[in-house]
Amino acid sequence: MSEGDTRAIIAELYDTYGRRDFERVAALIHDDVDWVIYAPVSVFPFAGPRKGRAAVLAAMADIARAFALESYKPEVMIVDGARAALMSDVSYRQRSTARVLRVRIASFLRLQDGRLIEYREFIDSFDAVEQALGRELRL
Amino acid sequence: MSEGDTRAIIAELYDTYGRRDFERVAALIHDDVDWVIYAPVSVFPFAGPRKGRAAVLAAMADIARAFALESYKPEVMIVDGARAALMSDVSYRQRSTARVLRVRIASFLRLQDGRLIEYREFIDSFDAVEQALGRELRL
Repeated sequence: MSEGDTRAIIAELYDTYGRRDFERVAALIHDDVDWVIYAPVSVFPFAGPRKGRAAVLAAMADIARAFALESYKPEVMIVDGARAALMSDVSYRQRSTARVLRVRIASFLRLQDGRLIEYREFIDSFDAVEQALGRELRL
Repeated sequence: MSEGDTRAIIAELYDTYGRRDFERVAALIHDDVDWVIYAPVSVFPFAGPRKGRAAVLAAMADIARAFALESYKPEVMIVDGARAALMSDVSYRQRSTARVLRVRIASFLRLQDGRLIEYREFIDSFDAVEQALGRELRL
């Protein structure tokens, strides 16, 4: 698989995710995907590790139930063979409060057979928790 | 600048940083570097944005005063032109308590004229705060 293929598939993955086309997203996820969002599950129950496509789609559905995606803008995309890394500017509206959370997401992806086989997501999770709770944390 | 150059310079940057050779690190940082560590400054005063080499070296010195680097292992390195992204497994010993903090660091770098001109660092900052305080945060 060429870097051009990697770039095209990942661009399609983010585009379809942004358009909430989860059927097409599902087709771009490998059966054996290894997935982690690094954030506290006490506040974001869809965070943490997931193994396999069904578990990842369930996590995406959980995210969508709690948050409406306002915008997902990849700002930097780095591609190297079958791997890519992105920095994105993302806005989610919390459905329970209508508050908009703005987070910068760093993601690392690896493709295999043209599908996402590995995903790692980083955010400033302390800041994201404060935004989700609508108040500063007591230290 | 070729991707091979980017790879070599970034490998040297991490190697010299790991060996605490800050003189050589300084030589690899651009005068006009634009730098952000995404984490709460209330707990990690060296976090947040920094502009210019002197400010970045001061932040590195602040990190070193608070934390002794135990190990810094880049596990994934993605290079694309003058940009790179790394995921690293990092252990720091907090000098005031001797506690070891283990963090996964995601970093995005861009070089210009063979030096670091842009740096963005992400960690699971909620987890890092709990490790630094040695207790769970009350939500």
